[in-house]
Amino acid sequence: MRFWGWGDDAHAGEGIPPHAEEMLARELDLPPGGSARVALEDVRLRDPALPAAALAALRAVCDVRDDSEARVLHAAGKSYPDLIRQRTGDAEQAPDAVVLPASHDEVRAVLDACGQHGVAVVPFGGGTSVVGGVEPLVADFAAVVALDLSRLDRLAAVDERSLTAVLEAGVTLPEAERLLGERGLTLGHFPQSYEYATVGGCVATRSAGQASTGYGRIDELVLGVRMAAPAADVDLRAMPASAAGPDLRELVVGSEGALGVITSSALRVRRRPEEKRYEGWMFPSFGEGAESLRALEQAEASPDVARLSDEEETRLSMALAGSGGAKGAVAGAYLRARGVAGGCLAICGWEGESADVARRRFRTAGLLREQGAVPLGRSPGAAWAHGRFHGPYLRDHLIDRGVFVETLETAAQWSGLFGLYRAVGAALRGALGQSLVMCHISHLYPSGASLYFTFLARVEREPLEQWRRAKSAATEAIVANGGTITHHHAVGRDHAPWLAREVGDAGIAALRAVKAELDPAGIMNPGKLLPGSG
Amino acid sequence: MRFWGWGDDAHAGEGIPPHAEEMLARELDLPPGGSARVALEDVRLRDPALPAAALAALRAVCDVRDDSEARVLHAAGKSYPDLIRQRTGDAEQAPDAVVLPASHDEVRAVLDACGQHGVAVVPFGGGTSVVGGVEPLVADFAAVVALDLSRLDRLAAVDERSLTAVLEAGVTLPEAERLLGERGLTLGHFPQSYEYATVGGCVATRSAGQASTGYGRIDELVLGVRMAAPAADVDLRAMPASAAGPDLRELVVGSEGALGVITSSALRVRRRPEEKRYEGWMFPSFGEGAESLRALEQAEASPDVARLSDEEETRLSMALAGSGGAKGAVAGAYLRARGVAGGCLAICGWEGESADVARRRFRTAGLLREQGAVPLGRSPGAAWAHGRFHGPYLRDHLIDRGVFVETLETAAQWSGLFGLYRAVGAALRGALGQSLVMCHISHLYPSGASLYFTFLARVEREPLEQWRRAKSAATEAIVANGGTITHHHAVGRDHAPWLAREVGDAGIAALRAVKAELDPAGIMNPGKLLPGSG
Repeated sequence: MRFWGWGDDAHAGEGIPPHAEEMLARELDLPPGGSARVALEDVRLRDPALPAAALAALRAVCDVRDDSEARVLHAAGKSYPDLIRQRTGDAEQAPDAVVLPASHDEVRAVLDACGQHGVAVVPFGGGTSVVGGVEPLVADFAAVVALDLSRLDRLAAVDERSLTAVLEAGVTLPEAERLLGERGLTLGHFPQSYEYATVGGCVATRSAGQASTGYGRIDELVLGVRMAAPAADVDLRAMPASAAGPDLRELVVGSEGALGVITSSALRVRRRPEEKRYEGWMFPSFGEGAESLRALEQAEASPDVARLSDEEETRLSMALAGSGGAKGAVAGAYLRARGVAGGCLAICGWEGESADVARRRFRTAGLLREQGAVPLGRSPGAAWAHGRFHGPYLRDHLIDRGVFVETLETAAQWSGLFGLYRAVGAALRGALGQSLVMCHISHLYPSGASLYFTFLARVEREPLEQWRRAKSAATEAIVANGGTITHHHAVGRDHAPWLAREVGDAGIAALRAVKAELDPAGIMNPGKLLPGSG
Repeated sequence: MRFWGWGDDAHAGEGIPPHAEEMLARELDLPPGGSARVALEDVRLRDPALPAAALAALRAVCDVRDDSEARVLHAAGKSYPDLIRQRTGDAEQAPDAVVLPASHDEVRAVLDACGQHGVAVVPFGGGTSVVGGVEPLVADFAAVVALDLSRLDRLAAVDERSLTAVLEAGVTLPEAERLLGERGLTLGHFPQSYEYATVGGCVATRSAGQASTGYGRIDELVLGVRMAAPAADVDLRAMPASAAGPDLRELVVGSEGALGVITSSALRVRRRPEEKRYEGWMFPSFGEGAESLRALEQAEASPDVARLSDEEETRLSMALAGSGGAKGAVAGAYLRARGVAGGCLAICGWEGESADVARRRFRTAGLLREQGAVPLGRSPGAAWAHGRFHGPYLRDHLIDRGVFVETLETAAQWSGLFGLYRAVGAALRGALGQSLVMCHISHLYPSGASLYFTFLARVEREPLEQWRRAKSAATEAIVANGGTITHHHAVGRDHAPWLAREVGDAGIAALRAVKAELDPAGIMNPGKLLPGSG
């Protein structure tokens, strides 16, 4: 992974197509040129501060790296502020070292050593957090280490009759699909960070994937979980369901490394789909499209992938589709030919046995037609599928070009969804001035849906300040309008100031009590999840 | 509700049909006669010990009753040991008083008064716990009160677009259906305790209903929840989904009154079904039937109600069907005529719009036929539906007749389900000697299913000791064979000694930490949920 952006050079794609760049330059009033990046050797780092005794204790457990490359690569996640800091060569907050345990027991031994030597620990999976979740804050400790989980990379068990699998935390999602695929199985979890995200990271952050309307969020897939916490191991066996008191799985899922290190999870898996069918549908407006998706979901007729772009996102994704190759342009031409180019595009996808896909699609398509949606065939679906993990690469190209670009997401009940949509859009436009603010619905629930905003503006002289202004305005609008502060990006550092607005002071107190019990010295991921010192 | 049993006299039904009684007498070697019951005025009670200052403080908040009838009716739940104690006139552990707040704020004021005066509080919904969940244990406190929630009886809000409703904790399930039914909605939650159970009680105990394979367990229906805890109010808004840290709803759901008093819940509701279609299917054996249900569930083709009796339960339910009226006998004759009376009976039920019921049933029926199941038509389904809430009445008749009768339940992954089934059956038969032990699968999940055991024997001289022996043997077999200690009956007092075997010492420590934070004096439902003093 590039330290300053997403992916490696081989997969960066073609950049912004010229016609899209012209459009952005015009609509955002971009000056010529763009933003520079420093080379790895020019990144500024503190000297590593890990006390010698701590280093020796950690080296007795597992591999430890404190070279600049390792530290810079673990200095930040992939949020816009992370990228800005890394591109400008600011890795002052890099961890003092990176430790690489290869088993649950080694993780436990690392925690013991860190506890003994007063060293903070930041669990690090794929490093794809966009909410500051892996920022190595030292707090009051002697030093801070990134606990890299990449060596916990095994498919530990498969139960084909129960359709469950135990995956270690550091298995990346593509590797999970490869390992499960050998058994004819799939996890079916495809967030945009898919290429780098790890299973443990998804569990720790309550991730949702692009097909989660069908496959379920990661929290719906977790049946059991194992976590090494400083005070104890938490080991919850896979159970299909239980009434044995509060569900402690749900306390570990989403704990974001602030309670301990998730080392493996027992997850629901499915048989690998025989067919994946994605197609485009056009709605006259975002409001009408949302109502149709609500009707589908409440009739239990949703596709597995259901994404509805608002008017602005539909317009811009047509223009930007060049990064998805020629098919984007074809789709654009097709839409114009059908005379529905001014509406809102939805991508609907079904996965499974071919007969089931056909049966389910038939029912959904009938309902969609009844509701006035126009089928666009498979071409827009193929274009979407081709570019489905391309967003982070595109973001790098946009930042290169001098564009401020960020995303955020929320969810709310259907009855409040449109009000929330308007309020957040207005807040972002108000904070950014001249800007492009677009949105899509991407996860359906019987009681509501998620909203995912992407917003672009000309970068200001103080991009971090620009970011804070937009983030704060949007989040205030979210909490004031009944939305959750995060539907699938987690809390991390960036959302922590608003967590009490979501769960109340009593909720915060309960979480702090659990943290004090499992992590009495507070070494686990300080400054994340919980507001204040963590 | 009768203090010594279930329901009121008007609904007690016809008793055990003579041919079934003969069969039981023969197979269990029952002596003639049966067990007696004392009259209400002969029940033994301690003098109420509520200090005068506490009584005055509570009376300043709401209605308080300390007459014998109120105390006896709140002295126990409806487990077998509860009934035995109540029938023999032992209500020594009755609460010192029953308080009847009518709002969240009154509940809060009750908790404040009890905290101030050192009085333990036992939240009491329908009083239908079968695990000692409402046993009024005084622990080290000056006195203990039952906090009766029956006056929190409102449908507080309905959101028809989001298909959610806010129900106060004391609303009984039939009343919830009546109130929602006026809006064309249903909660769809039908545990066997349906007639008396309350919404809050279901949420506090992670209840599952007979149609939960289709509608989902109560924990899948809860979107938001409000709880008055001694230290603070916990107020979690309804959200379709969130990644804002650990899911605190799941800490409140299943908290069994040990953290605080759930005062209202925001629940997912559905449109009232146009049609309910229940029918019988016969499988050659329990093992083959279980494999068929697994295949259905993993193909997302399960009916909403899916209950499969083992050979023994099939045989006995035919004999006992008389308590369900003439239809049971008709069903028995029908089965014999089809030559499948020696197999295993499954009840499959679909609820919803008629077209959907037809469509879904068609698919499921096709798969069932492929797997060798024989359709028995609607008659067995109608017989089951007629008697679906009759179990507790039948239990009273059996106890009257001198039968030891109890149920327990668990769940496990499909791969271990049959081993668990055999082990629990063997443990019960070993503990009880001459007995009838039967089982059904009643809740399907992709990764596993529940097992519900009913066991009968001749009552011994010390029925409570007989019960403890059977309960302990079965629960040891459950934890040794990968089952949960409870799938839907909750922990209460009876399962508390085994909770650490399910969630580990770290899980217990985390729960205790939350309890210490929300209920620092420990007044909430002492001795329940958590092992030891609670």
